[in-house]
Amino acid sequence: MGEFADLDRYLNNTANRQRFIAELSAWRRIPAISTEPDHRADMLRSAEHLAQMARDSGFTQAQLLPTGGHPAVYAERIVDHSLPTVLIYGHYDVQPVGDPAAWRTDPFEPTVKRGKIYGRGTIDDGQLLMHLKAVEAHLKTRGELPVNIKLIAEGEEEIGSEHFAALVTRERRRLAADAVIVSDTGMFARGVPTLTTSLRGMVYFELTVSGPKFELHSGEFGGGVENPLEAMAAIKVALKDPLTKQILVPGFMDPVQEPSPEMRASLAGLPFSEATFLHDAGDAPAAVGEPGYSTLERLWLRPTLEYNGEWGGYQGDGAKTIIPTASTLKFSTRLVAGQDPDTASRQVIDHINAFARSHLRGVRVSVREIHRGSPVAIDSDLPVVQAAAESMAAVFRKPVAFTGEGGSIPPVTILQDLLHAPAVLIGMGLPDDHMHGPNEKMDIAQFHRGTRILAQTYSRIAQRLGAPAPAVPPSQDVQL
Amino acid sequence: MGEFADLDRYLNNTANRQRFIAELSAWRRIPAISTEPDHRADMLRSAEHLAQMARDSGFTQAQLLPTGGHPAVYAERIVDHSLPTVLIYGHYDVQPVGDPAAWRTDPFEPTVKRGKIYGRGTIDDGQLLMHLKAVEAHLKTRGELPVNIKLIAEGEEEIGSEHFAALVTRERRRLAADAVIVSDTGMFARGVPTLTTSLRGMVYFELTVSGPKFELHSGEFGGGVENPLEAMAAIKVALKDPLTKQILVPGFMDPVQEPSPEMRASLAGLPFSEATFLHDAGDAPAAVGEPGYSTLERLWLRPTLEYNGEWGGYQGDGAKTIIPTASTLKFSTRLVAGQDPDTASRQVIDHINAFARSHLRGVRVSVREIHRGSPVAIDSDLPVVQAAAESMAAVFRKPVAFTGEGGSIPPVTILQDLLHAPAVLIGMGLPDDHMHGPNEKMDIAQFHRGTRILAQTYSRIAQRLGAPAPAVPPSQDVQL
Repeated sequence: MGEFADLDRYLNNTANRQRFIAELSAWRRIPAISTEPDHRADMLRSAEHLAQMARDSGFTQAQLLPTGGHPAVYAERIVDHSLPTVLIYGHYDVQPVGDPAAWRTDPFEPTVKRGKIYGRGTIDDGQLLMHLKAVEAHLKTRGELPVNIKLIAEGEEEIGSEHFAALVTRERRRLAADAVIVSDTGMFARGVPTLTTSLRGMVYFELTVSGPKFELHSGEFGGGVENPLEAMAAIKVALKDPLTKQILVPGFMDPVQEPSPEMRASLAGLPFSEATFLHDAGDAPAAVGEPGYSTLERLWLRPTLEYNGEWGGYQGDGAKTIIPTASTLKFSTRLVAGQDPDTASRQVIDHINAFARSHLRGVRVSVREIHRGSPVAIDSDLPVVQAAAESMAAVFRKPVAFTGEGGSIPPVTILQDLLHAPAVLIGMGLPDDHMHGPNEKMDIAQFHRGTRILAQTYSRIAQRLGAPAPAVPPSQDVQL
Repeated sequence: MGEFADLDRYLNNTANRQRFIAELSAWRRIPAISTEPDHRADMLRSAEHLAQMARDSGFTQAQLLPTGGHPAVYAERIVDHSLPTVLIYGHYDVQPVGDPAAWRTDPFEPTVKRGKIYGRGTIDDGQLLMHLKAVEAHLKTRGELPVNIKLIAEGEEEIGSEHFAALVTRERRRLAADAVIVSDTGMFARGVPTLTTSLRGMVYFELTVSGPKFELHSGEFGGGVENPLEAMAAIKVALKDPLTKQILVPGFMDPVQEPSPEMRASLAGLPFSEATFLHDAGDAPAAVGEPGYSTLERLWLRPTLEYNGEWGGYQGDGAKTIIPTASTLKFSTRLVAGQDPDTASRQVIDHINAFARSHLRGVRVSVREIHRGSPVAIDSDLPVVQAAAESMAAVFRKPVAFTGEGGSIPPVTILQDLLHAPAVLIGMGLPDDHMHGPNEKMDIAQFHRGTRILAQTYSRIAQRLGAPAPAVPPSQDVQL
């Protein structure tokens, strides 16, 4: 710990800490709701405010970058081109308020109570401010940063990052980096330091089974022609066995690796409560899925094929005796390490078409992909991940576990695919932060831990990625 | 033929024939559209008009019977309580016009062109008038009827016969009969005399599979909980194999008899065109169903399990990555001879509940019956059916085939279930009569054949059901 005592002292200083939270409050008073057109001016104010905070923290330049929608904020401090470069990702836009009556405080008047600060955007993505304060700490205590730092904060994360891929493509030289740090996620639980190293990708499909051109009387024609809702059931059970939960698409599972014993042990060590999970899952009656894997393994490390929506025929009250004209299904696969959307998409579409050709001559079947995203799988042996894990373990004084996310985070996928730099997800959020709900909050102690972890992480990245680093044995604190 | 020469002469008389068609036109000028409240007065006028036509034809009394909706018309001519009694069923209401621009003539100004009379209600159920003219022929040529005749014509056939069961229950003494003759159907094809001896029954169900209380993110939760749309697929394939088309509900198929060789031969002899069938079936790509049975056998003599409507989850544009809260399915079984709705309903519901208990612990499943109707299967050896078949064969001078209907006809089921009398369906409609569409028509030659067939049928019923009849060998013209 002695190595970072100066940084810790600066970041632990009470006056500094109070100032940091005041700065956060000043920023989050601006209702930067990206989805509401009335807040367009607030979006600009929030972006300018962030750029100014970056300048005040020591970034040498900060500016707004135009996009097809809300602008992004770019800032940088380039120390020396021979040093490694870290790109920080975050966003300045916030979720809508939702039902104002559900808030116990004004969502845009951040309010401190019992070690927490309540308000819209305090954690999501107020924690971006941790990076500015970590930069400030380096400059104030050591005079310079150990790495070059760039920052990109978008204004459309809460509305799907629609223009982010175009921005990153256009600005890929400016954004080039050796590592990306994303602080927009959370830890598995309070007191359980974790780093997210996998995000599932996906391919989303729409499938239509068409039968008669008009609805038929099910008495007059039932038994004579194929029923599209019946053909759809045949296709569904050919895609995935609904009882064994095995995905039956040929080749689909081939690239999927079994979780390593280390990863299984790491996941098994997390304080996972099935009761809490089921409560969060809308009081689902039971945890159900592929046999042989724990719930967390299924959620983070195994692919899925899920039906998202389906309709066909009569949906009104009572009885209408028809054979429907068509059945439509929206479904999606989640992909894990080793799978790529191109191959997976082709396998699913080929399988459906081949099945229909050989088994369903009474209907017409068409399937198309309508959305995709790559999985993200970060090797926990990468220097940048090791640097983050060691810093986190040092601050928490306990081992760090690696976790996954079942869903994708579009900007992370975009940055990975376009910049070809490894990403590390260091988030200080807690499960009860109500990120998109009423009474969103940030735990202030988590914020301060975050600033220290990030300040150390920059240094450790410099050590590991800089000129031939001294051989540092892996920390015993880091649980792989 | 000599036996009925007097009746034939009366019914073939040109002046009589012209008068019959004029009477039909006068009746069908009244727009008795039961579903349109604006036509309430027309409904009454049409009912009164029918009652007067019955009196004019020789019924000794005719009156309107009130129901919960439009009144019914009742008429009778009781000759002698020792004679058999025939109940005629028909209806005086008609379908709405639909798109007026699609009509080539005024739908309520019946128009004769090339041996056909065009207008709404000309065939459906203008052919009820055939019975009045057959009665008239007996009275004018022989002075009296060979049987007692009762007539019931409802005013709600085109809107589901909603109040008919209550009416028949209330009036079951008045309506008591040895046989029911329904003339509201058609022949299989022009020049192919047929009698309908089977109607499939049905039970209609609604099934709901419920999972999470609110929609879940399919990335965060996919693989962790049961997806209701997936559980629904499991239930569907447990009800019926979508590839082999076998109904898998235990016991459901047990009472179903194989079609007799005679019936199979009769159906195989019908001029069935698969191309025409598929055209009528909304250009369905292929005839598909249970292997080992012809299309007509599947439509008329085999039960079905058909999906009528289904929905769950996201139905909008693009991709929404959710696990839905529920999946709902409307489905129905069609029942054939030997099956009863009570047993079939219980079997289906028990099977779904047992399957859910043993295989679907991650969802809640509920299923309920929402509609039912008994199958009708008329033994072609019954005297009343033989009487009708011989009469039809005599007039057409060719064998009569027995056919089925894939759907039910609610009033037939009601009369069968409540009066316990066999029904015979003698319809003169032709497949191109456009019964519910624009340019509905009746073939005038078919009408006149129908009057002769019915007049002979009354006499033959008297011979077969009256005091010990002479042993008449079955006609060689009747194909069983």
